[in-house]
Amino acid sequence: MAAPKALVYGGKGALGSTLISFFKARNWWVASIDLFANDEANANVILENSESWSSQEEAICGKVATLLGDEKVDAILCVAGGWAGGNAASKDFIHNADLMWKQSVWSSSIAAELACHYLKPGGVLTLPGAQAALSGTPGMVGYGMAKAAVHQLTKSLAQPKSGLPDGALVAATLPITIDTPMNRKFMPKADHLSWTPMEMIAQLLFDWTQGVNRPPNGSLVQLITKEGKTDIVIS
Amino acid sequence: MAAPKALVYGGKGALGSTLISFFKARNWWVASIDLFANDEANANVILENSESWSSQEEAICGKVATLLGDEKVDAILCVAGGWAGGNAASKDFIHNADLMWKQSVWSSSIAAELACHYLKPGGVLTLPGAQAALSGTPGMVGYGMAKAAVHQLTKSLAQPKSGLPDGALVAATLPITIDTPMNRKFMPKADHLSWTPMEMIAQLLFDWTQGVNRPPNGSLVQLITKEGKTDIVIS
Repeated sequence: MAAPKALVYGGKGALGSTLISFFKARNWWVASIDLFANDEANANVILENSESWSSQEEAICGKVATLLGDEKVDAILCVAGGWAGGNAASKDFIHNADLMWKQSVWSSSIAAELACHYLKPGGVLTLPGAQAALSGTPGMVGYGMAKAAVHQLTKSLAQPKSGLPDGALVAATLPITIDTPMNRKFMPKADHLSWTPMEMIAQLLFDWTQGVNRPPNGSLVQLITKEGKTDIVIS
Repeated sequence: MAAPKALVYGGKGALGSTLISFFKARNWWVASIDLFANDEANANVILENSESWSSQEEAICGKVATLLGDEKVDAILCVAGGWAGGNAASKDFIHNADLMWKQSVWSSSIAAELACHYLKPGGVLTLPGAQAALSGTPGMVGYGMAKAAVHQLTKSLAQPKSGLPDGALVAATLPITIDTPMNRKFMPKADHLSWTPMEMIAQLLFDWTQGVNRPPNGSLVQLITKEGKTDIVIS
């Protein structure tokens, strides 16, 4: 039997790299989509900075078509994103809102489009939400708008005639803070026991591909970590 | 006493024109922000197509600074937006999502920024939401993402330290379908008694500027019209 296949969108980031290691260790074929190659991946789709959403879409879909041909994949895991703060009065408000849109919504939407064309029936699509965006985010207005859009995309894709293949699962993961090297660097004195370990997220997404603890379609899956233990809250 | 002042973002559209007539008839000074001049407005800020969100912001904020100087306004009413459909598998998905983002989120965000700088304490900022985006919108995925972002923006702006002036009210109006000439043209056989009249929305927003029926800050104000009667549902 051929190895199961996954695309990891954002596969060179901290969480993306963890996902690739985790799935490869379980004998998956994994391709990374990112600005830089992940040498551990079986294949890489390299993004170039695009002038527009449509030109980025065209470039990525073209490269994925070349890579996959008529093959389909078992999972598309989008973990691309970023963070920038600022309230609506801040000098960088629009600049940062634009950046957040490009980093989170361009990527999630293109992942959704890839899922419509390349995900197997019953496959798994995951998108990167944020627990904070379940309510107002006055100190990071642009970030909140982008993540609210990803949540809406998740809910839309879960409904009939969204374009996803039959039986597919789409869900967003909504962490508070992920325990990444970058977050450790910039917040050395934070309570790291309240951060969600990357391996925990990898295990969670892997389980879904195996039909284990699969949440209802369209779920916003909050990851609430306290004292080193992560509770899953589904909304 | 000087006349109260409003900025109407999208002042040349059907709803924007109705707002300008309504407020002018009540002795307000009203400026329109739109691609084309509204001759009924006291002043016009003309938008040009911008290459980027930041360049649009810069152009509009510069023109509003010239227009208002140190003056502040009593209301900023954003009714700019548009509609495009398509599920995630449709050929135009990304193109339309991009268009929706520019038409709804660029405008609402820039209106929010203007409110931070030019709205009087206790003034009113309204943003254009959509009732449909309170749940998944599989047939209009891009539209839903943009409107979900506007809802999130509304919730963010209502919280402390959002950048809005003290005592300001921000609320989004969430119609299902507005009874505009364009909607009549394209949906001639629809049940027009279930569409929300533009004058009803004008009265509602005007009332808020007068402290009448002012909803809680950050409200998503659903306008549910049936048999010619509109119920207000606040969430």
